[in-house]
Amino acid sequence: MENAGPDADGEGRRAASAPAGLSRRGLFGLAIGGGVAGLAIGAGAGVAGGAALGRAQAAEEAQHAYEFFGAHQAGITTPVQEHLHFAAFDMMPRTDRDDLVALLQDWSYAAARMTQGLDVSATGAVGGPADAPPDDTGEAQGLPASGLTVTFGFGPGLFENEDGDRYGIADRRPAVLERLPPFLGEDLDPQRSHGDLCIQVCADDPQVAVHAVRNLSRIAFGRARLRWSQLGYGKTSRTTSAQATPRNLFGFKDGTANILADDAAALDAHVWVASDDEPAWMAGGSYLVARKIAMLIETWDRVRLAEQDAIIGRDKGKGAPLSGGDEFSAPDLDGDAIAVNAHMRLAHPDSNGGTRILRRGFNYVDGNNDLGRLDAGLFFLSYQRSPAQFIALQKRLSTDALNEYIRHVGSGIWAIPGGATPGSYVGAELFA
Amino acid sequence: MENAGPDADGEGRRAASAPAGLSRRGLFGLAIGGGVAGLAIGAGAGVAGGAALGRAQAAEEAQHAYEFFGAHQAGITTPVQEHLHFAAFDMMPRTDRDDLVALLQDWSYAAARMTQGLDVSATGAVGGPADAPPDDTGEAQGLPASGLTVTFGFGPGLFENEDGDRYGIADRRPAVLERLPPFLGEDLDPQRSHGDLCIQVCADDPQVAVHAVRNLSRIAFGRARLRWSQLGYGKTSRTTSAQATPRNLFGFKDGTANILADDAAALDAHVWVASDDEPAWMAGGSYLVARKIAMLIETWDRVRLAEQDAIIGRDKGKGAPLSGGDEFSAPDLDGDAIAVNAHMRLAHPDSNGGTRILRRGFNYVDGNNDLGRLDAGLFFLSYQRSPAQFIALQKRLSTDALNEYIRHVGSGIWAIPGGATPGSYVGAELFA
Repeated sequence: MENAGPDADGEGRRAASAPAGLSRRGLFGLAIGGGVAGLAIGAGAGVAGGAALGRAQAAEEAQHAYEFFGAHQAGITTPVQEHLHFAAFDMMPRTDRDDLVALLQDWSYAAARMTQGLDVSATGAVGGPADAPPDDTGEAQGLPASGLTVTFGFGPGLFENEDGDRYGIADRRPAVLERLPPFLGEDLDPQRSHGDLCIQVCADDPQVAVHAVRNLSRIAFGRARLRWSQLGYGKTSRTTSAQATPRNLFGFKDGTANILADDAAALDAHVWVASDDEPAWMAGGSYLVARKIAMLIETWDRVRLAEQDAIIGRDKGKGAPLSGGDEFSAPDLDGDAIAVNAHMRLAHPDSNGGTRILRRGFNYVDGNNDLGRLDAGLFFLSYQRSPAQFIALQKRLSTDALNEYIRHVGSGIWAIPGGATPGSYVGAELFA
Repeated sequence: MENAGPDADGEGRRAASAPAGLSRRGLFGLAIGGGVAGLAIGAGAGVAGGAALGRAQAAEEAQHAYEFFGAHQAGITTPVQEHLHFAAFDMMPRTDRDDLVALLQDWSYAAARMTQGLDVSATGAVGGPADAPPDDTGEAQGLPASGLTVTFGFGPGLFENEDGDRYGIADRRPAVLERLPPFLGEDLDPQRSHGDLCIQVCADDPQVAVHAVRNLSRIAFGRARLRWSQLGYGKTSRTTSAQATPRNLFGFKDGTANILADDAAALDAHVWVASDDEPAWMAGGSYLVARKIAMLIETWDRVRLAEQDAIIGRDKGKGAPLSGGDEFSAPDLDGDAIAVNAHMRLAHPDSNGGTRILRRGFNYVDGNNDLGRLDAGLFFLSYQRSPAQFIALQKRLSTDALNEYIRHVGSGIWAIPGGATPGSYVGAELFA
């Protein structure tokens, strides 16, 4: 607090440790309480993210409050957090370009605040007038930022659907942004697939993640409607070398060969859209594929250990390739220690002309079905410079021995624009 | 490790920090890999819980590995953990008393190991024969005990159902153990209610909680079947004065007046079944009520702040009674600051002849419905010396102003026997 700027007033500050420095001067025009829409986000006030952070609030807090603004959106190379709440939205009928822009501005404003441990507005959950609903729903009151990241994406339907070019952006649609082709063995539920917009929310506290999705859904009222959502936990990928490789629900280490956040060359080659890629507004962005992959847990659990190892191509205990070594040893794909249909062989870059993706998935458990079997699996998320990377890899997996034990039941693809500059909003370049 | 007993061998040990001291000598006869049923749990080998813990493994670890054995089952007064996986089971048709006893022995054995950070058996996830399915499913490999508690309960149907007295225990059924009476405003889903057996699993890591339910479900194969299950997070009650009062999904602090673990007199008066209560085998036990309470989130979020405060009877920000003071101030129920139908007034012991319960609930979010509304609420869990306490309180809440915003959609009641003694199993006294 001692480092707060002169206009810090404590309003809308969730936790004692949250960074301060935001003014309460009428920045926020949420349409919730009254009928006022829109948000003067360019008015120079600026949710400046780390800029308003006192320098003395160092290491520990920095690890728990990530910048919202930057060249890339947070939540892609950010060290994978413990919890996920993913939400897909459809724009409401009869909305226009101004509605969409205002929604993205409002969402950016609220996300910039929440990622810093603040309420969605300066009047927050309890600071506003008693005779109006609070701007913030309040369940994260007192909780720190908890490593929250909020990542926004645009689905193919936003650019053009049966109603035509609703938002005047059809000519700016990336040529590669279209619904994924059908893959062998998938059984997609349309109610768990697709969406005009997506929000990937990650945090180390599930209450903070759910709070963000809930409040962003509320802010969208009348403009976009939650289509489907998915909670996940226990990250199944690591994005920094400091993170241990987690295990998926088949008990195997997953994501050992993932692209790491400090591998700038690999990120540029495989994840970030370059400034000379088309369209120009996607520079610094990426493409997100989400796949809800149900695991036939009980069936897998009856497979003998040696066969489990053979199906994956790795040793279950250490995670080492069956060709020998430790978890991080390069597999010998020329020999026959790793079966021709082993998951790891087929997914490996060496079997795919060097194709790599950045994985960021989570386990999910949605209770159980009527047979008493767990409704559980992997909520797969991957970022890539082009959807073609995922498509190539997924086609290669058509002969995967693992397919007997999994089923893809949900799917979606979104263009992830680059990060917003302070004072602006995510996707501004698309509408420039 | 330096404190491990002479028979420690490292097998089945999940994490480097897990306590050691368990022998691999044929203790475990899980029916999973082959056809062998049963478990020689009384053979003197003993999963002795903390007894095998080196004394030098002090404070930090002790906080993260709770004793399974003891006068009371763990998971009742244990400081509420961050995550819940609750599971209700039905016994399979044609099972007999021996099956039930063997199941409880196997469950107790596995729970005693998992709560100490160990695999369900000494051969674990990777230590067993390559030509058999592993005893442990492996996804918690490498994770510490994470504060895991596993609490077992017996539902009314276990003692007698349409098939009669299947297990020869009808004459030992507690007179108070019957399905709860109907309450105003409930809309129960039978597929989310009841169950012959229940397991409350709490842990600070959801992967550890899910691993426990999954492996206990697997151990039950052929004997009991998962009927329904519920994940929860963000505890909505505190059980020690060191824990801050958490907020529920309506944004209010919840459970301020809960019975705390160090209030022995209140626990004896309101929570623990006494040795002169009937039946004798329930001494040291309790009765658990579970209620899945859906919250009409979006409706609540449109209620003005002053009305939210009035409905609860507390100030949303501080959690103080509307009659004044701070969160822990006693409310003035004689004045009219707190409305006659305020939730807090109706639930308060002073409005209920001193009736108190120990609450241990969690928030839940099960995605969203077709209208784009969050399918979320409170998974209410309470422990009491008699179900009559919950019934009286719930009847009193029939005029609760909060009822407009909630709906009870699931329900269950179970007798929670006292804790097991080392070398024995939970519920042994019922079959003695």
